[in-house]
Amino acid sequence: MSDKAPWITYRPELKVLDCTVRDGGLINNHQFTDELVRAVYDTCVQAGVDYMEIGYKNSVSQFPKADFGAWRHCDEEDLNRVVGDHDDDKTGLKLVAMADAGKSDWKDKIVPCDQSVLGMIRVAFYANQVSEAVDMIRHCHELGYETSANLMAVSSITEAEIDTVLEAVRPTPAGTMSIVDSFGHLYREQIDMLYTKYAEALAGTGKEIGIHAHNNMQLAFANTLEAIILGANRADATMAGLGRGAGNCPMELLLGFLRNPKFKLRPIIKLLQDHITPLRETVEWGPLLAFNLTGQMNLHPRAAIKYRTTADKDDYVKFYDELIADI
Amino acid sequence: MSDKAPWITYRPELKVLDCTVRDGGLINNHQFTDELVRAVYDTCVQAGVDYMEIGYKNSVSQFPKADFGAWRHCDEEDLNRVVGDHDDDKTGLKLVAMADAGKSDWKDKIVPCDQSVLGMIRVAFYANQVSEAVDMIRHCHELGYETSANLMAVSSITEAEIDTVLEAVRPTPAGTMSIVDSFGHLYREQIDMLYTKYAEALAGTGKEIGIHAHNNMQLAFANTLEAIILGANRADATMAGLGRGAGNCPMELLLGFLRNPKFKLRPIIKLLQDHITPLRETVEWGPLLAFNLTGQMNLHPRAAIKYRTTADKDDYVKFYDELIADI
Repeated sequence: MSDKAPWITYRPELKVLDCTVRDGGLINNHQFTDELVRAVYDTCVQAGVDYMEIGYKNSVSQFPKADFGAWRHCDEEDLNRVVGDHDDDKTGLKLVAMADAGKSDWKDKIVPCDQSVLGMIRVAFYANQVSEAVDMIRHCHELGYETSANLMAVSSITEAEIDTVLEAVRPTPAGTMSIVDSFGHLYREQIDMLYTKYAEALAGTGKEIGIHAHNNMQLAFANTLEAIILGANRADATMAGLGRGAGNCPMELLLGFLRNPKFKLRPIIKLLQDHITPLRETVEWGPLLAFNLTGQMNLHPRAAIKYRTTADKDDYVKFYDELIADI
Repeated sequence: MSDKAPWITYRPELKVLDCTVRDGGLINNHQFTDELVRAVYDTCVQAGVDYMEIGYKNSVSQFPKADFGAWRHCDEEDLNRVVGDHDDDKTGLKLVAMADAGKSDWKDKIVPCDQSVLGMIRVAFYANQVSEAVDMIRHCHELGYETSANLMAVSSITEAEIDTVLEAVRPTPAGTMSIVDSFGHLYREQIDMLYTKYAEALAGTGKEIGIHAHNNMQLAFANTLEAIILGANRADATMAGLGRGAGNCPMELLLGFLRNPKFKLRPIIKLLQDHITPLRETVEWGPLLAFNLTGQMNLHPRAAIKYRTTADKDDYVKFYDELIADI
């Protein structure tokens, strides 16, 4: 990159991950139509997106099929039905599933990589689950997958806890460690502090640093750019920012910024028009005031999500007073 | 500010300017009710906001009263009707009007400061109008007003032009020079470049640097924070981000971030609920896709605003194709 006007140049090693179906599915228990999932897939291919996270590899006993759609479990037959023709080499896209520590039957349900269209497993975990996460990463690596360590809710734990997680992740085969701002609480200077911490702890391992931002304070795109500026080479985004509560970094903003000519914006715009905007008739997401407030207060958005389903959903003052009374 | 966790400390000299009525009025030709303007005023007082920009001092011949509301002209009798009881010392608030170079009868229509509730005139100008702007600043200063130089559309001019404007503004009595991202096009590194340029050119003058951001790419709040981090002590925002096209930096986000205990968020939330959200029934603003695109392309939002009034307003692909064909 040029030092003079870096915003018109690019790093070829910077890769974009679409997590529309995985993260967006938290709004609707992953009950997307096959048509929508395929449309997101086709769009990722056309737009030059590097990774598409198509769902969770989560436990059927914890997330019964009666209540949750196929993309909560990513059974191989569901994957094959919708993207069975996938080919990494022909498309330039790698398919990804996320497995949560504590919520995944990972020992039994993840098949060897050469038997799946999936090429990567991202392991999501809270700090106190790091030991299981390390086991999961090693297991998935042995099965042939690229792997990633996604420490969630990093704004709610101490620096000593973060350091301990980084020490545990360092010797694993995880190719990426992501900064995950689950509560949408982090400001620019906190992204800097975390990036520096992650980079120093993982120096010399070849691990990439990723960024997964939420949009509670309209900072998801800005914080993604900030991490990229500092050196993060893995960036997560979703189409129209689709995601639980305030949503995520919008893909249309991220691809509009990135200068690698392989990225194409027009297919994204078409997907938004044909498939994503219509979802707003049944589900709500975006940086509404209620999510601004939980983000500012470093709270899980669940209180705001719940309040948005009540008759008082537009009584902002009442919600604010309740939040303040609770802290 | 602490170096370790600056985001929980504050600079007492950082002042916030509300430009809801002035900038938001570009949506509706400044045809706000007196009740709304007074509600914004009362909220600014209660919330600890330092400046409220209540409208333009623009020319009646160019902006006829038949078509434009009172806040396009800020005649003294209109000001006195709604905020005639204003007192800087009692409220801690200073009232501001903006005067545009080329659109203002400033020689005749700006009364001496001691005969007005206004305490500040901000002079807005394009680079090629800098000579008139300098005259306006000197004139308003002589009348007793605090003054500010607001170079608009800074993303669309050359560095040499910016340097020339800064040289011209440097010897004036303007207390503030603002970075104004009219097209909502600037990324973080460009804010840094401009801040450094403004700060170097104005060093030793005692002038403050301000930031006025637009939200085309969901970066208004982030860019405002960026300028503040670098040292800007004047930050503009509007209630709910009200403003033409994508709108502005949302006051509720800015005050939620600032740690000076004089700032209060609750009055803002109440205003949003009672007065600002209801405006959405008749006017549209916010970082919609159309504004994302004009921001990315460094275009005035007028094409997007016009398109949003057509029957094709949700045909994003058509709008994108038209924009691409035009550049």
